Amino acid sequence: MSVLIVGSTALDSIKTPKAENPRLLGGSASHAAVAASFFAPVKLVGVVGEDFPRRYVRLYEHHKIELAGLQRLPGKTFHWSGEYEANMNNRRTLLTELGVFETFTPKLPEAHRSAPFVLLANIAPALQHHVLDQMRRPRFVTADTMDLWLNVALPDLLRLLKRLDAFVLNDSEAQQLTGEENLFTALRKIHRLGPKYVVIKQGSHGSVLSGPRGQFLCPAYPLRRVVDPTGAGDSFVGGMMGYLAAGKGSIDGNIRRAMVYGSVVASFCCEGFGLQRTTRVTRAQIEERVRELQRLTKF
Amino acid sequence: MSVLIVGSTALDSIKTPKAENPRLLGGSASHAAVAASFFAPVKLVGVVGEDFPRRYVRLYEHHKIELAGLQRLPGKTFHWSGEYEANMNNRRTLLTELGVFETFTPKLPEAHRSAPFVLLANIAPALQHHVLDQMRRPRFVTADTMDLWLNVALPDLLRLLKRLDAFVLNDSEAQQLTGEENLFTALRKIHRLGPKYVVIKQGSHGSVLSGPRGQFLCPAYPLRRVVDPTGAGDSFVGGMMGYLAAGKGSIDGNIRRAMVYGSVVASFCCEGFGLQRTTRVTRAQIEERVRELQRLTKF
Repeated sequence: MSVLIVGSTALDSIKTPKAENPRLLGGSASHAAVAASFFAPVKLVGVVGEDFPRRYVRLYEHHKIELAGLQRLPGKTFHWSGEYEANMNNRRTLLTELGVFETFTPKLPEAHRSAPFVLLANIAPALQHHVLDQMRRPRFVTADTMDLWLNVALPDLLRLLKRLDAFVLNDSEAQQLTGEENLFTALRKIHRLGPKYVVIKQGSHGSVLSGPRGQFLCPAYPLRRVVDPTGAGDSFVGGMMGYLAAGKGSIDGNIRRAMVYGSVVASFCCEGFGLQRTTRVTRAQIEERVRELQRLTKF
Repeated sequence: MSVLIVGSTALDSIKTPKAENPRLLGGSASHAAVAASFFAPVKLVGVVGEDFPRRYVRLYEHHKIELAGLQRLPGKTFHWSGEYEANMNNRRTLLTELGVFETFTPKLPEAHRSAPFVLLANIAPALQHHVLDQMRRPRFVTADTMDLWLNVALPDLLRLLKRLDAFVLNDSEAQQLTGEENLFTALRKIHRLGPKYVVIKQGSHGSVLSGPRGQFLCPAYPLRRVVDPTGAGDSFVGGMMGYLAAGKGSIDGNIRRAMVYGSVVASFCCEGFGLQRTTRVTRAQIEERVRELQRLTKF
């Protein structure tokens, strides 16, 4: 089955202590869509400007990502620029130019409205609502978010939580949303806000799922060298949704492995700037890391 | 087989945002010894003063901990006082009164010198050396440490690393020791300093083993309520060594499960002040959490 993915499609200029890379293909939807494409057909919904490089369109196409929902508008593509500290965890935003993203209204082509799996990647909650309003009874809806929306659009986000099957956020966002330092208490509180499945991402420490079959501690793949973690969270949730969409059987029966596959795609994402490493990965390499994670966690 | 455990035996006065508990039984050797006692016979080596409460001796005895190596000297017992912040991770020392610990020289009773398993719990590296000097070819020697020794006794510690089978330290200590932000690169560098097995503790994120059979990502048991994390690291390594000492077969065949058992005992430790919760735990409760960790990590 296919996954519809809406989010930001951007150009990222990324600086790390070791290198600087301008105008990479980025944005939550780009990372999530490429990650999901290893497992299932993807329909991308987003917006780009006239400056969006042709080679990035080819890159989407290379991953067989359906682009009927990608609007091209007069103006500039959303441009984000950020810098990482030596530990590759802390980053600061140097520049945000919204461009055509400022007035973006996702409009779904007719054929997109019946996609069974929907990933509302990080984007304003109002736009996430707007996408859901156009869908016809999707089977499984997941949303990701970021701290910005907790600060400036909390009522929209709280309303969104009641419309989701799964909600994915990172540990500091979970703490901000619930006022709880303890992750496992935070999970409980987030369930009460609506979602049946809650996933808290913890960067290099993996992630935790809470769902109808209890909790799952999902490992992160051990990396010796992190080149650029931008988009790792989006890759994780994209990989997870792609795997779920491809899976036979129940969500409950597949979601743990879906998270592990997402985690593995995220690990590849961290090994290159932007999408440079992810787009070169093969399914066989993904399978190898999944097997390795099995060996690394067995006792 | 038995485990010889040397380290500090102290009185801990602990303050958290919710409560204050004076003069609890504490110290690295106390926590490690009680943890190990669930699995194997323990010989404790340490020192206490005249003020050491009789009820704490009975508590050791209740856990069948052999006390022939516990010196009682004129003067006061080592007293540590600390305060935790709301997140229960950051703590600051309010007071350290070394007392009889200041001039402590571990002297092993004859019967202790042939113990097959030796745990050099956190204590000055010079004293850890002194214990090893008295041992007769132990089968497996593990040492723990703390940041203080990296700062004030690094040459002693580096010499010690060459005498160990296993070295256990936490993530920030590993970073300080190797100058490496990346945990997996740090593991490699620590191997080069001597130990065949290196375990890096990451608090509520679990721990990582690197050994002859590769790496193992050991989970932490999910806790909703952390009352007092003091001694959790000591409980972890104590439980691990107790389990190894009790195990049939090879170290390599047992060490993963040994870490999981250590992790579970550490989780109980965090649920009460000092040793209050740990000393009330049953083996059946430990087994239940080990099974639960298996369910929580399976995919």
